[in-house]
Amino acid sequence: MLNLQSASSTSWLRQVDESLEEILIDHAHCEHKAAATAMSLFGSYIENADLCAEMTSIVQEELEHFHSVLALLQKRGIPFRRLPAGHYGRDLNALVRPHEPHRAVDRLLIAGLIEARSCERFQLLANHVEDQELSDFYRSLFESEARHHSTYVRLAKQFDSEESVRERLKVLSMAESEIIARGNSLPRMHS
Amino acid sequence: MLNLQSASSTSWLRQVDESLEEILIDHAHCEHKAAATAMSLFGSYIENADLCAEMTSIVQEELEHFHSVLALLQKRGIPFRRLPAGHYGRDLNALVRPHEPHRAVDRLLIAGLIEARSCERFQLLANHVEDQELSDFYRSLFESEARHHSTYVRLAKQFDSEESVRERLKVLSMAESEIIARGNSLPRMHS
Repeated sequence: MLNLQSASSTSWLRQVDESLEEILIDHAHCEHKAAATAMSLFGSYIENADLCAEMTSIVQEELEHFHSVLALLQKRGIPFRRLPAGHYGRDLNALVRPHEPHRAVDRLLIAGLIEARSCERFQLLANHVEDQELSDFYRSLFESEARHHSTYVRLAKQFDSEESVRERLKVLSMAESEIIARGNSLPRMHS
Repeated sequence: MLNLQSASSTSWLRQVDESLEEILIDHAHCEHKAAATAMSLFGSYIENADLCAEMTSIVQEELEHFHSVLALLQKRGIPFRRLPAGHYGRDLNALVRPHEPHRAVDRLLIAGLIEARSCERFQLLANHVEDQELSDFYRSLFESEARHHSTYVRLAKQFDSEESVRERLKVLSMAESEIIARGNSLPRMHS
């Protein structure tokens, strides 16, 4: 349902155990980036009323999540700070084809795949972390990430044929699996 | 209270009378741009929790306004479309000083001045247009624009001394008056 070609590795869970605070800080940044991505798609395809309505919901939900993570950090006395970005988003965005309508299809599908990976990882985290509050928090997030994934895939089909989008989704999700499998020495939501 | 140095000209109201549909379409774009500006400030100053909370409210309100204008256009059978931008925003943004903290001060004050000008014009429009629905709509918007103006000015003071911000606001609002006085042959919310 999430169109992912691989499950996250146990080595990522080891990173989580060793650097939970940094993962939490990065999580806040991910929520902001998800909102900024939706806002950017809104601006690029502003004549598409359906897309703009969906992007508005996503912006609002992701900003709410950002503030929820921030509240959690504050409660735990973890100062929020900037972090050097991992390569995941950059590597994925490098796959966007330059010309329309392919550009729209790719931007939407990549946004959808990032939501799918977040969803898969929140589910993993919910079952893995022993901290009950944190586990409940992760569990509360994955429904919306899965929904956003479906929304992005549905919207991509407005820009190209169903078959082309399905094929492109396969290509991009295989690339996503390779990118995430490379891992990152920086502990991140998508390392 | 709005820190504007001039009132809008009657020649702008003539443009409104001649091209109300285009003004309405541009209004939707202005709401989007206001949301995008707030989102961009959020990303640039993400460690400032106060600023991020305010930007979140502004993003949400401006996106709501965008959809309200869109609904109004749809009700009137006016197709929403892209429009070539006027020079107002571009000319104002050219005044942003490049280095922090001045950059933050200028971005916030300019965002605040644009809200102030929108507020002043909504008030003018509410009294000028004969269409009751439209007049009520404009009236419903100016409270939030005035509030956003105050928020931006308040936040600017977190980046520099009260006195420096007050002086800079005077300089920028004088520049804003000159820019808006130049007008634009394209009928726009800020022509």
